[in-house]
Amino acid sequence: MSTPTPSVPANDVRRLDLRPLLSPTSIAVIGASSDVAKMGGRLVKYPLRHAYPGVLFPVNPRGGEIQGLKAYRDILEVPGSVDLAVLVVPAEQVVATLEQCAEKGVRAALILASGFAEASEEGRQLQERVAEIAQRTGMRMCGPNSNGLVNMHERIVASSNPTLEADLVPGRIAVVSQSGGLGLGSILYLGQKRHIGFSYHISSGNEADVEAADYVRYLLDDPNTDVIALLVEGFKSARKFAAVADLAAERHKPIVVMKLGRTPLGTQIASSHTALLAGSDRSHRAVFEQRGIIQVNDFDDLYEVAALFANTPLPQGDAIGMISPSGGIAILSADLCSDLGLTLANLSPATRDGIAALLPSFAAIQNPIDLTAIGTSDPTIYPRCIELMLNDPNVHVLVLALTVNLNYDSLMEFISRAAHSASKPIICIGAGDGLAGRGFVILEEGQVPLFRSFTKGFAAVRHLIRYADYLRERSGGRTGPAVVPVGDAAAKARVALQGRSGVQTEAFSKSLLQAYGIPTTREELATSSAGAITAAVRIGYPVVLKGMSRQLPHKTDVGIVHLNLRDKEMVATAYADIVRRVTELPNAQLDGVLIQEMVTQGTEVIVGFSQDPQFGPIVLFGLGGIFVEALQDVVVRVAPLSRRDAEAMVETIKGAKVLQGARNRPPADTEAIIDLLLRVSQMAVDLEDQIVELDLNPVVVFERGKGLKAVDALAILKS
Amino acid sequence: MSTPTPSVPANDVRRLDLRPLLSPTSIAVIGASSDVAKMGGRLVKYPLRHAYPGVLFPVNPRGGEIQGLKAYRDILEVPGSVDLAVLVVPAEQVVATLEQCAEKGVRAALILASGFAEASEEGRQLQERVAEIAQRTGMRMCGPNSNGLVNMHERIVASSNPTLEADLVPGRIAVVSQSGGLGLGSILYLGQKRHIGFSYHISSGNEADVEAADYVRYLLDDPNTDVIALLVEGFKSARKFAAVADLAAERHKPIVVMKLGRTPLGTQIASSHTALLAGSDRSHRAVFEQRGIIQVNDFDDLYEVAALFANTPLPQGDAIGMISPSGGIAILSADLCSDLGLTLANLSPATRDGIAALLPSFAAIQNPIDLTAIGTSDPTIYPRCIELMLNDPNVHVLVLALTVNLNYDSLMEFISRAAHSASKPIICIGAGDGLAGRGFVILEEGQVPLFRSFTKGFAAVRHLIRYADYLRERSGGRTGPAVVPVGDAAAKARVALQGRSGVQTEAFSKSLLQAYGIPTTREELATSSAGAITAAVRIGYPVVLKGMSRQLPHKTDVGIVHLNLRDKEMVATAYADIVRRVTELPNAQLDGVLIQEMVTQGTEVIVGFSQDPQFGPIVLFGLGGIFVEALQDVVVRVAPLSRRDAEAMVETIKGAKVLQGARNRPPADTEAIIDLLLRVSQMAVDLEDQIVELDLNPVVVFERGKGLKAVDALAILKS
Repeated sequence: MSTPTPSVPANDVRRLDLRPLLSPTSIAVIGASSDVAKMGGRLVKYPLRHAYPGVLFPVNPRGGEIQGLKAYRDILEVPGSVDLAVLVVPAEQVVATLEQCAEKGVRAALILASGFAEASEEGRQLQERVAEIAQRTGMRMCGPNSNGLVNMHERIVASSNPTLEADLVPGRIAVVSQSGGLGLGSILYLGQKRHIGFSYHISSGNEADVEAADYVRYLLDDPNTDVIALLVEGFKSARKFAAVADLAAERHKPIVVMKLGRTPLGTQIASSHTALLAGSDRSHRAVFEQRGIIQVNDFDDLYEVAALFANTPLPQGDAIGMISPSGGIAILSADLCSDLGLTLANLSPATRDGIAALLPSFAAIQNPIDLTAIGTSDPTIYPRCIELMLNDPNVHVLVLALTVNLNYDSLMEFISRAAHSASKPIICIGAGDGLAGRGFVILEEGQVPLFRSFTKGFAAVRHLIRYADYLRERSGGRTGPAVVPVGDAAAKARVALQGRSGVQTEAFSKSLLQAYGIPTTREELATSSAGAITAAVRIGYPVVLKGMSRQLPHKTDVGIVHLNLRDKEMVATAYADIVRRVTELPNAQLDGVLIQEMVTQGTEVIVGFSQDPQFGPIVLFGLGGIFVEALQDVVVRVAPLSRRDAEAMVETIKGAKVLQGARNRPPADTEAIIDLLLRVSQMAVDLEDQIVELDLNPVVVFERGKGLKAVDALAILKS
Repeated sequence: MSTPTPSVPANDVRRLDLRPLLSPTSIAVIGASSDVAKMGGRLVKYPLRHAYPGVLFPVNPRGGEIQGLKAYRDILEVPGSVDLAVLVVPAEQVVATLEQCAEKGVRAALILASGFAEASEEGRQLQERVAEIAQRTGMRMCGPNSNGLVNMHERIVASSNPTLEADLVPGRIAVVSQSGGLGLGSILYLGQKRHIGFSYHISSGNEADVEAADYVRYLLDDPNTDVIALLVEGFKSARKFAAVADLAAERHKPIVVMKLGRTPLGTQIASSHTALLAGSDRSHRAVFEQRGIIQVNDFDDLYEVAALFANTPLPQGDAIGMISPSGGIAILSADLCSDLGLTLANLSPATRDGIAALLPSFAAIQNPIDLTAIGTSDPTIYPRCIELMLNDPNVHVLVLALTVNLNYDSLMEFISRAAHSASKPIICIGAGDGLAGRGFVILEEGQVPLFRSFTKGFAAVRHLIRYADYLRERSGGRTGPAVVPVGDAAAKARVALQGRSGVQTEAFSKSLLQAYGIPTTREELATSSAGAITAAVRIGYPVVLKGMSRQLPHKTDVGIVHLNLRDKEMVATAYADIVRRVTELPNAQLDGVLIQEMVTQGTEVIVGFSQDPQFGPIVLFGLGGIFVEALQDVVVRVAPLSRRDAEAMVETIKGAKVLQGARNRPPADTEAIIDLLLRVSQMAVDLEDQIVELDLNPVVVFERGKGLKAVDALAILKS
């Protein structure tokens, strides 16, 4: 039994000491100014405004006094030690300033200037010099092209963003953003407006040194942070991020990510904007799915979903109970639950009876509950329904619709209290953006999750339910690398691979599969017509003949596959034809002819792996033939696969019904597909350094219990 | 040439005279009260509050004076004529009160009481009595279970909804809602909060008499209404609605609809809530698509999208120009455009040069434009970019992203002016729910379309572009019933259909197809083995033999289809086998054996029509075999089809690529499919009263230019 090798070595999850950057006890502002209209002015003003508890050193060549503090002519003149140097200098002065900081022994630097890798080739070279200084000196750096850093709980404010004029509300959400304006500008401003509290706002910029994954790793140990909101265009080291994300799941700290540049159009715009590789969207989506990361695709969703996770317990199941003051909204909500695959709870008899006693006799007692006009005009009914739902063991999540006819503050106060004491999540969705009275403000001040749109609200509820489910699966051991009994397959394969490179024949590719216990068609390699006939008899008619040539991986295209050969004459004719065709092709050499059993029954699927430039080996699965070609019906996961991953792949392809036995066919052996995916995943991990790509196309899957066979295979090795 | 018969007779689009209901010059409130906490009190208070210009008669058995007006003991006591009686009486008194109103000669009635068809079987019967009074007396009725009526421009307020405490802002959007609370409560309240003006709010309730389609038809002639927002659970007469919708497109008055109960779960909740048949969602979606109706699926979208249509010109094309103050939002926007299939404009050289002159040299000049930090700190740059975009002939729609760093009101004022003078639509999307300063309020007061979420904003832009495109297609004659040269097909078919009913054989079903010029396989009906062999020779081997029996429509299941018969022995054996099998089956009678050419090449599709209980004949198209069974890959349109409909059907199935020639196959003859769909549509319309269902399954489509053949057919006639 081989031990599964995680594709990310554990030591990549090491925690950088970011305290000098994120919790500095002394800050020098290089380029400080008396003029608060300037960045260098606000970088002195805001720490004072928010009562930074450490020591602040303005640095300005003119010396003198700045905003009541003594100013130093350069960093070397500053007395005592400096944790963090904030560089408010143009790009061209950054390297020299950093060298001075290094000389001074400054422990960390924040580089705000833009004009680096995001701007030009020249800028990219400048950024490499910055990275080199960080590596050489061990000085931790944020930026360049950063919008700054804010640590709310410790009142550390190293940013010139005007949002920091306002009072800061500390909270449990850390925001790490590669986009400066959106993170520290918009999210902080809009979040505070909604009474959403944050622990950190980190604008990571171009990430010449410290990268998003490093901040996340650090924040996993931070007692003030429960949820991490991430706004990224890509990851500097995607594998490191995947490993950190796994640790986040272990710590039950949800990561909500919005990845910009998901689509071809978005990537095109991003390529001229960021210094980071956008990478394959499907690999990113796969790793988010595999690591329990919550992906959102709109800006407001990022902070609203993060706030939901920060402010509710996780649900114990997937059943939603809902109360609506309007029949129309009850129907709309059921429609949206249907769209999103959400489950409406079967209310218990006690709940149904309790509600029936509150509502008029004509009201239908169902879920969503429609309170009817009576239920909205009598202010005691909604709260009683909430209590009934909270006490119902069949309800795991409670969704409350709020409409303008509920214009009494007492209900909002009741909901706010209930949300704090309940062991179930309570989510409010308002029809539109406000109620009469203080309404929504009471909920927001009480940190009750509140959405302004039903679509977005239910999408968020789905994230909550799915994350809770992920953690349950994780604690059941179903999200870790699956253990596959492949024995000494890797060692055998390595021996076979010695001295080989590039495209391999089907026969050799299948020998690798066999080493990993993957069933293939019965077949023999022949080098003569007589040998082919003997082999055909052993295998049993009808047979298939395939010419083997490393120069001709696409055999059908050049006519060297002959199907359904029923006797020795047909075999001899086919053999001769293959020899003739390969001989006629320049630069092609025949490595023998494969005699293979003819497989006719079963469903064709394709399985394989390739190397993602960022995440390493990724395993692919899809339905074969017309499905993959007309519908691009394939799904990928990053290796190593968990059993949950393999199951999800089989279940989530569009044509999943084909495997379940559509069209009067028996159900296919999906268990065998799962086993195959796990073996291919193991092979991908074991031989990552040698095999660039492996395609099993087609694999024929038989009916349930009867297994499958790889009919064709193509391995491409490193050159 | 047959003239296409529209499935909706034109006289169904007749306009009811709804003036007594919607523009009454005198209103009697039956059940008026001095207590404004009661409905009957508010129904007197609100007309007074909003200075109703007509005559108001409070009616109350106690007489006396109510809110300063003389009260009458019953409606008969009221002096002079009464246009509208508002009934504030319980359900059980409604019929008697209506009879009194009829006696008085009241011209219209508004019935607010609930407890009718939405509540119980008893209530349904009560509602039928109400409908009967309406029919008998010609009194027009709104409700029962209505929340009231408001005509903003004429200051007619017949509703007790507390939203009417506020001042009313007249505007160009009429709201017709079957859901009381959502329409007159939430939409009016939230719309006014956003400075969205309305012309009418009509709560149509259970629609015992006047239905949604009637209100829409009336509003098409209303000079104060430009856009109609419709919130429905279903249509009383779906065909009437379809005809009215066509007239709305002719008048260029967009209808924005939110249909509740789209999904199985939603329909289930709706069934206990509404008195209307929810109907097939796919037929509704089809007719919305065919008539240019804008469908939204969330509540806030209904009034936000309606406001967009009310406040912008229609775009002349589909190319979006976008300005973003943030690189991140530029990427997000490109992602969302990609998701939604929207086109980003290729900016003209003049625009590119103009923008390049404004922005720093490192800024990438692309679309979306990223203003960079300089573009947001200099308040002149954004307006200049707007002007450049508006002057660019390549830009048809201008989308402006607004973020919190744009905290200067002058920009909002500029945008507001530009939106009013520009001939192109300008749509703003704000990151989150507000800016510093007056920001969004300036835009809202200026009626500039403003969305709070990028997802919703771009979805709305897509609606605008698609609607403009629909109107262009309509004016090009491509949305009306296509004319098909079928000659006297209908007359021939009617002769053939005489005396027949129920399930028909393949042979007879195909004779109907042939009458409509639809190609079928070469075939002959034989009644003896010798006749079968003679026919096979005429047709040419290989052939197919199929037993014809009206009792056995599913021939393959009972083994009476023999494929690929290559000589006369095989034909004789197959013939004998078919005779034996049918003879052995009780209750089955053999109507002959069909000898048919064997079609092997080509792509299988299915085509047919059936009768939708609400919309009448609907035509279906899909890919055959595994696609329809595993993916439910079918699309429907309501007959008669336009050429645009038929093209859309072929293009929008999921497996459309299969027809374009995936997997090394030549492209299929899609033109022949379009022709087939139009012929089937014509047949469906012509023979609607006789044929319940027609299935052509499969139809084999050959490569481009080579046509198609219906291989099997099944017609089911009325019993």
